[in-house]
Amino acid sequence: MTKIKVGIVGYGTIGKRIADAVRLQNDMELVGVTARSYNYRMISADLKKIPMYEWPEADDLNGLKMTGTFDDLLKNVDIIVDCSPKKGGAENKEKYYVPNKVKAIFQGGEKPNVGEVSFVAQCNYDDAVGRDYVRVVSCNTTGLCRTLNSIKSKYGIEAVHATMIRRGADPWDIRHGPINAVVPVLELPSHHGPDVQTVLKDMPIFTTALSVSSTLMHMHTVTVDCKEKPDVDEVLKLFGKTTRVRVVDNASMVRSTAEIMEFAIDSGRNRSDMPEIVVWKEAVGTTGHKLLYMQAIHQESDVVCENIDAIRAMTGFKDGKKSIEMTNKALDIV
Amino acid sequence: MTKIKVGIVGYGTIGKRIADAVRLQNDMELVGVTARSYNYRMISADLKKIPMYEWPEADDLNGLKMTGTFDDLLKNVDIIVDCSPKKGGAENKEKYYVPNKVKAIFQGGEKPNVGEVSFVAQCNYDDAVGRDYVRVVSCNTTGLCRTLNSIKSKYGIEAVHATMIRRGADPWDIRHGPINAVVPVLELPSHHGPDVQTVLKDMPIFTTALSVSSTLMHMHTVTVDCKEKPDVDEVLKLFGKTTRVRVVDNASMVRSTAEIMEFAIDSGRNRSDMPEIVVWKEAVGTTGHKLLYMQAIHQESDVVCENIDAIRAMTGFKDGKKSIEMTNKALDIV
Amino acid sequence: MTKIKVGIVGYGTIGKRIADAVRLQNDMELVGVTARSYNYRMISADLKKIPMYEWPEADDLNGLKMTGTFDDLLKNVDIIVDCSPKKGGAENKEKYYVPNKVKAIFQGGEKPNVGEVSFVAQCNYDDAVGRDYVRVVSCNTTGLCRTLNSIKSKYGIEAVHATMIRRGADPWDIRHGPINAVVPVLELPSHHGPDVQTVLKDMPIFTTALSVSSTLMHMHTVTVDCKEKPDVDEVLKLFGKTTRVRVVDNASMVRSTAEIMEFAIDSGRNRSDMPEIVVWKEAVGTTGHKLLYMQAIHQESDVVCENIDAIRAMTGFKDGKKSIEMTNKALDIV
Amino acid sequence: MTKIKVGIVGYGTIGKRIADAVRLQNDMELVGVTARSYNYRMISADLKKIPMYEWPEADDLNGLKMTGTFDDLLKNVDIIVDCSPKKGGAENKEKYYVPNKVKAIFQGGEKPNVGEVSFVAQCNYDDAVGRDYVRVVSCNTTGLCRTLNSIKSKYGIEAVHATMIRRGADPWDIRHGPINAVVPVLELPSHHGPDVQTVLKDMPIFTTALSVSSTLMHMHTVTVDCKEKPDVDEVLKLFGKTTRVRVVDNASMVRSTAEIMEFAIDSGRNRSDMPEIVVWKEAVGTTGHKLLYMQAIHQESDVVCENIDAIRAMTGFKDGKKSIEMTNKALDIV
Repeated sequence: MTKIKVGIVGYGTIGKRIADAVRLQNDMELVGVTARSYNYRMISADLKKIPMYEWPEADDLNGLKMTGTFDDLLKNVDIIVDCSPKKGGAENKEKYYVPNKVKAIFQGGEKPNVGEVSFVAQCNYDDAVGRDYVRVVSCNTTGLCRTLNSIKSKYGIEAVHATMIRRGADPWDIRHGPINAVVPVLELPSHHGPDVQTVLKDMPIFTTALSVSSTLMHMHTVTVDCKEKPDVDEVLKLFGKTTRVRVVDNASMVRSTAEIMEFAIDSGRNRSDMPEIVVWKEAVGTTGHKLLYMQAIHQESDVVCENIDAIRAMTGFKDGKKSIEMTNKALDIV
Repeated sequence: MTKIKVGIVGYGTIGKRIADAVRLQNDMELVGVTARSYNYRMISADLKKIPMYEWPEADDLNGLKMTGTFDDLLKNVDIIVDCSPKKGGAENKEKYYVPNKVKAIFQGGEKPNVGEVSFVAQCNYDDAVGRDYVRVVSCNTTGLCRTLNSIKSKYGIEAVHATMIRRGADPWDIRHGPINAVVPVLELPSHHGPDVQTVLKDMPIFTTALSVSSTLMHMHTVTVDCKEKPDVDEVLKLFGKTTRVRVVDNASMVRSTAEIMEFAIDSGRNRSDMPEIVVWKEAVGTTGHKLLYMQAIHQESDVVCENIDAIRAMTGFKDGKKSIEMTNKALDIV
Repeated sequence: MTKIKVGIVGYGTIGKRIADAVRLQNDMELVGVTARSYNYRMISADLKKIPMYEWPEADDLNGLKMTGTFDDLLKNVDIIVDCSPKKGGAENKEKYYVPNKVKAIFQGGEKPNVGEVSFVAQCNYDDAVGRDYVRVVSCNTTGLCRTLNSIKSKYGIEAVHATMIRRGADPWDIRHGPINAVVPVLELPSHHGPDVQTVLKDMPIFTTALSVSSTLMHMHTVTVDCKEKPDVDEVLKLFGKTTRVRVVDNASMVRSTAEIMEFAIDSGRNRSDMPEIVVWKEAVGTTGHKLLYMQAIHQESDVVCENIDAIRAMTGFKDGKKSIEMTNKALDIV
Repeated sequence: MTKIKVGIVGYGTIGKRIADAVRLQNDMELVGVTARSYNYRMISADLKKIPMYEWPEADDLNGLKMTGTFDDLLKNVDIIVDCSPKKGGAENKEKYYVPNKVKAIFQGGEKPNVGEVSFVAQCNYDDAVGRDYVRVVSCNTTGLCRTLNSIKSKYGIEAVHATMIRRGADPWDIRHGPINAVVPVLELPSHHGPDVQTVLKDMPIFTTALSVSSTLMHMHTVTVDCKEKPDVDEVLKLFGKTTRVRVVDNASMVRSTAEIMEFAIDSGRNRSDMPEIVVWKEAVGTTGHKLLYMQAIHQESDVVCENIDAIRAMTGFKDGKKSIEMTNKALDIV
């Protein structure tokens, strides 16, 4: 079998994880990643013997050995996964991917129109099959889509109101706060609602958001007005069998985002990640036709498997269910 | 005019603030506060020349000068404001207040049945007039009651769903976390909903809660299904004229709980408190008959004025509106 | 008596406090403060009826009433206290103060050469008498100078090694981190040591620094190689009688920076500040000729009284001891 | 070769890591771990097929499959590594290990006299050879011993003064604070100095300590009065070749404890741990005979390799250098 040749632009929080994930797929080959500056991430890539290609405007790379230039990378791949910081993807698309006729995946920091499709594998895999440009939505949007798509299929949805309690900064990010405050997004609705609608077209969702002093995970509190009356046990079963969603409970002492991350460490997962959306058994409730639940999102990892599925879809693999299975198996995802 | 003689049991976060507030009322006299152990709070009370009465099971008071014993205090007051830690109030009621026939106010950490009435002045002042035992509800419940009571009067309420993002510990409390986590309350509904119903009897409210790594304020995100269609500008006007509620905006750079507290400091308020419930102009929105808003609650101070009004009501002052005006003026509350 | 006419440039963390302090001095008059943009700080100034003068490049002031322009302010003052953000003071000096022949005080964020003297009142008041440009050193430097000057006078000093554990951001600052990290200053010595030497010329001091996730106070651990053998009780007495230094102890439950700030709130101080350097009784120790102690510095307020004394010195008041007494009395400083 | 049969009591932060480490040694066999209550840690052990033995006073284990009782475990091992919470080790020694004549290793939370020797492999491996009871010292003490032992061997040491800036709680621990404070240990010296002396007998060390709002690592600032004049480059070389010590630098963007932990994640280490003591190149300095440096300690993992070496020493493996090499290789330690 010829493997899909993948190149990664941007070796940061998401890029480095997708690099690992590509290397774990039987049907993919990681051609290489771009190097833009010298830092511990690149040193780690070097230790893992990941080929590096010099970015056009790279800083001093301090002697890191390059396999080639970015042009070389573009020539040797079937698809690029662009993990540039916000707006970088759209710039690279015009400057590099369109002129060189290279397929590309973008991340959720880009505007929706960067891609032909905004993508969450278990919601709209088919839409991405054969496409040239696809946008994997943000971690928060991915998390909302996974559980809402499942609820909709079972009960129908009249309306959704969700609050995102966002981690203030990633674990490695020492510059951003808040240190001791809760910071509301002073805009209603927050951008998350409209972003969900780029995947689940007609989802009637309204979101609010705020940031807190934590680095670990986002937390969502979700209220769904269902068309049919939901039942707690049934919903728990539904989530239990929804791929990339995991139900935890108080009995196992997973009582917080910190303990979710510790459970991921204990489970021996790559980079101690928790790519599944985590729902608490005790935090699912109903009142009439309303369903309420809380879910936690590991902002660094939940979109990684989405990128892997997008690679397959865009390069012609038509069976979404099968792709998800392959990805999950390779990445040890429930 | 004979002043109402007030004694305070428990000189902690709430007790010390009520002591200050009583001293600022023209119609009240602070007879004294109880001393249970030696610490910087008692040293400060001493500096302010607040009379101290020795608690029956006091620790070594390290030479602090006592005006008398707790028995002396009980004999010299018209009413006690009990600010004991959770459950201490109920114990003191049976042990001291009932046998000595002393009126007493309890705080929201006690169960509702400790009082004949659960109290928020602008919602149910009249119910407390002449009572012997009244419970001022918790900071979160007080905050919900103030705004919901106002919304209900204007639009009617079908249902309320609220999420409390709670500060993990008070500013002075170095023992409690979380340091880096979001901790959901694994119980639906959280106790806040039922507690609101002790004041606003038929309010159809459902609440969820979680704790974050901040010491400053609680934050609520509230969704109200109104009977009549709400309008954002109208709601802002409504909140603007609701007592003990304050509207802030992004234009004045009050973008977080931290900046609310700084605004309180800049305003020169006693103890740098913000007793009003704070709503953000930009975080009020509607979708159909649904009204959404975010509010911040200063957990250390919003109930202080409620205790003052409860003192008046219980000792026979019948005009609730007038009491609120007197309290607000003395405490510089909007 | 003619009062000293004071203008303040920059109404931020330090400027607003100096404005308050000037208004509390019998021999000073606050002519006004500059307004550069609309925010809650200016709203508070307006509420306090502090005259505002429009800064040359001001943003939209949203209807705040101005008493005049910055030029008007310059013409009506004996001295300006410049509290601009870092480097702004030096720019203003060349652009406004030198051409208009106005005396000016600068803050510790400026380079030492902005002033003729770097200033800590109890260390070198005399050097500032009659000067045109004086720099009040930073909060950390001020804290080190106060205690080291006292130790030097009693025991002589061979060498000082100090570590500054710095608060990551001010309480109102929601943008800066770290949220969950300790961040060392990767430079030895940190700039604090040389800065102490701008006041205590021959102090042999070496400093290291790091930032932590707290907003409240800086903490210093200090090791002093004394010329004469120090004694713990004697040192505590020495600190006890050193102005603007305060000794606290574990017995009074002041066990952390958080409890120091709560003690300041309880003490009813303006803005809940703690302008004294705080030393823990239990954290003073000796080993041979070495003296060790920990001290906490309230970064927002310790330099305020220094600015007041600098105003007096520069406008011709020669008695430093008397000035410190006047300032302390007006500001309720120990 | 007969493998050393190891049992682990207490499957918490340290115990679970030692279990992993034992399983990676060619000369050891993990007989099993004790189960005391049901939680995500035990679920993870189950997923890893680690045999579990029921602790005498176990809570409801919720159906976890036990291989046997604690008695069975005791009968089948050559040595127990006791990772009980503080003081539990000493109790278990008297109750179980002495009566059953089982060798046992204890952790640093126990008092020194629980063991015949307090142990850091690269400092005093030989002392533990053939012993029945050994105490591996705490994470902080281990960190100090590793670097100080190396400095002493090269320059000799007159005196050491160190400040421990401790993480307030482990990453999974949501109960402990502080959320927003710096908390000094109000005791001089802190217990760390005397604890170092249980390993490096005559080390003249004096320590102070404080806690901060971080979960990631402890940070030490160390000042060493050397007998011979130290040189920065030479010290960096020395640390570079000292086992279980790692030098990082600003150039590679490892500027904080957060970035150290991210580097560990990127390096693909088990549980994303950093068992080496980390020294910053830019934070090593000298002034005369004084050497200053900062080091970071990963509290959850640095003692794991020490326990492995202690197992070998106590069961008769005499070559300390060889044991350290074996351990390092198996655990991918520098």
